[in-house]
Amino acid sequence: MALPLIRSTSNPRVKNAAALRESRRRRKTGEFLIDGAREIVRAQKSGITLKEAYAAVDGDWSGSFADLNVSDELRQLLCRWEEDRFPVWPVARSVFARLAFGDRDEGVVVLAEEPRRSFELFEERIGKSPLLAVLERIEKPGNIGAVFRSADGAGVDGIILADCGADLWHPNTIRSSLGTVFSIPSVTAPAAEVIAWLRARKYRIAMAICDAAKPYSEIDYTGPTAIVLGSEDEGLTELWHDRSVTGPDSAAIVLPMRGIADSLNISNAAAVLFYHALLRREEARS
Amino acid sequence: MALPLIRSTSNPRVKNAAALRESRRRRKTGEFLIDGAREIVRAQKSGITLKEAYAAVDGDWSGSFADLNVSDELRQLLCRWEEDRFPVWPVARSVFARLAFGDRDEGVVVLAEEPRRSFELFEERIGKSPLLAVLERIEKPGNIGAVFRSADGAGVDGIILADCGADLWHPNTIRSSLGTVFSIPSVTAPAAEVIAWLRARKYRIAMAICDAAKPYSEIDYTGPTAIVLGSEDEGLTELWHDRSVTGPDSAAIVLPMRGIADSLNISNAAAVLFYHALLRREEARS
Repeated sequence: MALPLIRSTSNPRVKNAAALRESRRRRKTGEFLIDGAREIVRAQKSGITLKEAYAAVDGDWSGSFADLNVSDELRQLLCRWEEDRFPVWPVARSVFARLAFGDRDEGVVVLAEEPRRSFELFEERIGKSPLLAVLERIEKPGNIGAVFRSADGAGVDGIILADCGADLWHPNTIRSSLGTVFSIPSVTAPAAEVIAWLRARKYRIAMAICDAAKPYSEIDYTGPTAIVLGSEDEGLTELWHDRSVTGPDSAAIVLPMRGIADSLNISNAAAVLFYHALLRREEARS
Repeated sequence: MALPLIRSTSNPRVKNAAALRESRRRRKTGEFLIDGAREIVRAQKSGITLKEAYAAVDGDWSGSFADLNVSDELRQLLCRWEEDRFPVWPVARSVFARLAFGDRDEGVVVLAEEPRRSFELFEERIGKSPLLAVLERIEKPGNIGAVFRSADGAGVDGIILADCGADLWHPNTIRSSLGTVFSIPSVTAPAAEVIAWLRARKYRIAMAICDAAKPYSEIDYTGPTAIVLGSEDEGLTELWHDRSVTGPDSAAIVLPMRGIADSLNISNAAAVLFYHALLRREEARS
């Protein structure tokens, strides 16, 4: 049986859900919102637990989502949910505007549960000889998401977030990742812990440092490898500049800068390094 | 002698300048605005003609920019302009807010003249055996700027904009390019004309097409080479899919997509291809 239409923005369920746009609220509840059918489908396929959905209804509520004037992708999703008896709350357009993020008005928002993340779970998922990315102190959710998207394309096996302030479930992270933030294994930890973890497992640690002497193309990328990137403005913190900390399997690498600007955008630098590593690893296998 | 402080947003000079935030107005006048000291310095070094500047003044106007509470970079620029008798209008902060773009409030905006651009001028600047980028139908100014920034890093010799709606002098293009939009030679033309130009000069035309059979790493990037990219949503138009149009020196190439997403962000795809081409060209030279 269909749920009743929610018409008021002061409905407690709506207020609770809308509050998840605040990072603090997400941290407290362990819940977050996902906008858009594509991202929701990717979250579901990646094993994210969805709790309930809100679908925008214009005008009268017929009691069936089959009648809604929405994209085929969304209608399929809504009909599948109806069959599965997954709770979908029909909400008036004005109520939906409270729930949707910024200018996103794709007609559906889902309330999801943050997945449990730990180094143990991470290690189970990344395979035997992984290519990992490590991001240190990247603050902009959109940048983190963009790096996930490139990592997905290049087949990076997992991403470690070292001291990144932004939470992974920020709407801009989800959006700019195209939902790959759900599918790529990831874990968040302090930088010192990340280095210890990588060293204990004998990872080659390739640290992008803008005044490094060695071009990125001159190191070996086969075997367990971690590509480490810091923020555009600050670069990697001191820890990564000390070879006695990062160990004998670490190397500072640089992307050549041939023009007048002194750095690449973080997701562009990441894409270049990920795809280069992928190519070298494939050459070594064949 | 210092110019008088402009206190009113209805000052005709200010109104004229502010109107240049509209693309239509830029097209009509051939003038545009540049925000921020770094971008302005890069424009000037790249030979862009600057006509006049507007600098924000808080409180009383002492008659000298040396007293302003601004960044060292900006103070140096203002003092140099004073020496050169370049017209800098001091404007009240409220007036400056009308002139500055969005949330940019770096204290200086300059009115500049669009440089003349043509295939003749372009050809003079790109060298004997260039690596070029061609962008077709990229509409978002920020994306175009981001591609310029990657191209700058990888030492791409010039960029051809084929049927790109956005004008190059949009504030978001300038900003996301970090001012490299001024330094990298560029030209705008219809796609058919671009293909004819490349073919007449026997360029290798490497077209990024998402269902192409050949990986990007399997073609030769030495000699005159053009890397052609379309929009994320639509890809390249039909013209580029017809080998009888693009000629015997053309090849459709693909970036492997190993994950769940089906494309890279345009500037990330561009960065991967540019840096790969750079590497191959350097290997061939050594």
